[in-house]
Amino acid sequence: MKVEIIAVGSELLLGQITNTNAQFMSARLAEIGADVYFHTVVGDNPKRLEEVIRHAEKRADVLIFSGGLGPTKDDMTKETIARHIGLSLVNDEEALRQITTYFERTGRIMTENNKKQALVLDGSQVLPNRNGMAPGMAVEKAGIHYLLLPGPPHEMKPMFADEAIPYLLGVNGKEEVIASRVLKFYGIGEAELEHRIQDILEKQTNPTVAPLATAEAVTLRITAKAISMGEANRLIDPVEAEIRSVVGEFIYGIDEDTLSSKVAELLKEKGWTLAAAESLTAGLFTAELANEPGISTSLAGGVVVYNEEAKKEQLHIEGQLLDTYGVVSAPCAAALATNVKRKFGTDVGVGITGAAGPTPHDGKPVGTVWIGIACADEQPATFKLVLSGTRNTNRTRAARFALYYLIKQLSKK
Amino acid sequence: MKVEIIAVGSELLLGQITNTNAQFMSARLAEIGADVYFHTVVGDNPKRLEEVIRHAEKRADVLIFSGGLGPTKDDMTKETIARHIGLSLVNDEEALRQITTYFERTGRIMTENNKKQALVLDGSQVLPNRNGMAPGMAVEKAGIHYLLLPGPPHEMKPMFADEAIPYLLGVNGKEEVIASRVLKFYGIGEAELEHRIQDILEKQTNPTVAPLATAEAVTLRITAKAISMGEANRLIDPVEAEIRSVVGEFIYGIDEDTLSSKVAELLKEKGWTLAAAESLTAGLFTAELANEPGISTSLAGGVVVYNEEAKKEQLHIEGQLLDTYGVVSAPCAAALATNVKRKFGTDVGVGITGAAGPTPHDGKPVGTVWIGIACADEQPATFKLVLSGTRNTNRTRAARFALYYLIKQLSKK
Repeated sequence: MKVEIIAVGSELLLGQITNTNAQFMSARLAEIGADVYFHTVVGDNPKRLEEVIRHAEKRADVLIFSGGLGPTKDDMTKETIARHIGLSLVNDEEALRQITTYFERTGRIMTENNKKQALVLDGSQVLPNRNGMAPGMAVEKAGIHYLLLPGPPHEMKPMFADEAIPYLLGVNGKEEVIASRVLKFYGIGEAELEHRIQDILEKQTNPTVAPLATAEAVTLRITAKAISMGEANRLIDPVEAEIRSVVGEFIYGIDEDTLSSKVAELLKEKGWTLAAAESLTAGLFTAELANEPGISTSLAGGVVVYNEEAKKEQLHIEGQLLDTYGVVSAPCAAALATNVKRKFGTDVGVGITGAAGPTPHDGKPVGTVWIGIACADEQPATFKLVLSGTRNTNRTRAARFALYYLIKQLSKK
Repeated sequence: MKVEIIAVGSELLLGQITNTNAQFMSARLAEIGADVYFHTVVGDNPKRLEEVIRHAEKRADVLIFSGGLGPTKDDMTKETIARHIGLSLVNDEEALRQITTYFERTGRIMTENNKKQALVLDGSQVLPNRNGMAPGMAVEKAGIHYLLLPGPPHEMKPMFADEAIPYLLGVNGKEEVIASRVLKFYGIGEAELEHRIQDILEKQTNPTVAPLATAEAVTLRITAKAISMGEANRLIDPVEAEIRSVVGEFIYGIDEDTLSSKVAELLKEKGWTLAAAESLTAGLFTAELANEPGISTSLAGGVVVYNEEAKKEQLHIEGQLLDTYGVVSAPCAAALATNVKRKFGTDVGVGITGAAGPTPHDGKPVGTVWIGIACADEQPATFKLVLSGTRNTNRTRAARFALYYLIKQLSKK
């Protein structure tokens, strides 16, 4: 199946927004084995849009449009396609009912323009919009499939996953469903991960295994096609087990898990409370943990001890320790963890100290970070990082590594 | 001038990265009045790339390519263009020298592949790459201009601004330069801002005034074309003054200023130190401020007092105050600011407390935030926010509003 993704909207050509829709769709299409050879962006101009359609019809058998389904005069995607393939636009009762309900619910006034959004291509399969007013459409004409989706990403994405993907699987003539599971890694780079599971990556066709590095983590998405979700998951299970047997130590969660949600979950399980003492991260660690709703039962708080004076006065880090080992050292990280734990009377204390840059700190090269974790009555554990990013990527990575090592410590036995 | 932006790279079609380059270029091209009618993305495939070039030549007179200038076999943008327009590739001494220097400086081993990056289109203007190895190129053939730029955004963006834009201004046959100044706003929405300066927006042709909302701020970019930078800036000045006369109270900086850089600058000017007490933001405020290199002379640190116990024990917030006014109140914000200032012995204290959600806190509806700022010997000032975002957008916005109000307080005569 050859797919062309066509985004319609002058705001894209003026550089006011980025075409994130094309990336989202492309990643999902790659999972089902569809070939995407071109992305095109065209403005709100019927003549140029029709030119794009004519050209795409020569090189693809599925054309996916996003944008131009709104209520204003500028929005002309479905009108242009209707004219081009010779279909009329008809009123869709269900869509009109949804639009009317939306206006009633929000107390806003519905205009004649809004009724335009309930018009659909005659004979098309209407794709319901659960997050907005404009319904999507899918229709086949002369062997080519036209899918029309709304432009706003929060409307397009669920419609694409829930409606367009099943439609395309049907086009392929198979009664298939698709299931995927995302494994989340920290503490290992994408290249190293790929290298270590090369054999697994190469032999997979169903499920497929696709690595992807995001800002927060390195992930592997395992995707299976089968006749049922149960069957698809049964295909995924042994692949996950095989990956875990090789690089399981770096996996901190699956699917929607984040480093902070995992820490929150483990603290809750143990009924433990936590406080943190942060130097170079200056609050990033506690702020990240506070992303989690309901964390106030586990997170007591913390101290940001940015300069040396604050470390001594607020957390009683001894001058002798600092003179002997320096601020960026294992003993300092351990003392920060132990002392903040005592100060807040918590079960867990975390200490983070390091040289963020731009200049070396206390003789330690930029990027050197020490993390201390003190749990209950145990001796504090310390971890060293040598990071090579910019000042602020190093600070973010230090906070995330602290969450990662905390997950490891809290998961022990 | 009709421009077509062509991104080359299979990673875009697989959904591994987003085409942010097209947005960046489009916004800059709009400023110089160039018309962008199409964006195209094509993979690392010479046949399909040539098809795209042939098609673009029919509808544009400037083709801007990004990507495919790297050292690997996949990278074939310049080879394909060379063949298509009948130019040979020749070695560029300066580019080769830069590549060699790069390898010497980083101590890495240079391969034969890397030398390929020093090949340029014969007769093209070489665009130096200050952030990577692949030089850019600009060449005209049969009335069509071909600009070849590297794919990585941190290499492409400066080359586009410093080399490609001046080249295109020259293509236009005018001896023009372009200057722009960005005004940064906080505490006012994009729609409200546009509404209040509608008259100014409508009457401008040179300079143009373009609003843009980013995650961090609402901005206005004033862009002027003139025969010299001095002349362009003289066109910008009165427009900036007119905007300031209407909405100046919401402007916190210009160009590269951020909320945190502005706070850092003002603290340094006054020689003041700062400490913060954070509840709902849980460290975001100090972490944001610590983005600034060299902040350790001004930022002493802070306390995250996430639960009520921590507020009482760590910052001596009195139970009676909490019982009377609640945690989310002006008196609590003021007390947090005053007490953290005293605790750290600083000149400025900031207190942030609020109901982040998902459930109301202490009877206060989700989104209610109080910010307290205590400067030197003055009575603490307090500010109330009523935010309507999600838990985490509210937390981020509360931290940024605190920086914004702090700028206002520190800027007072």
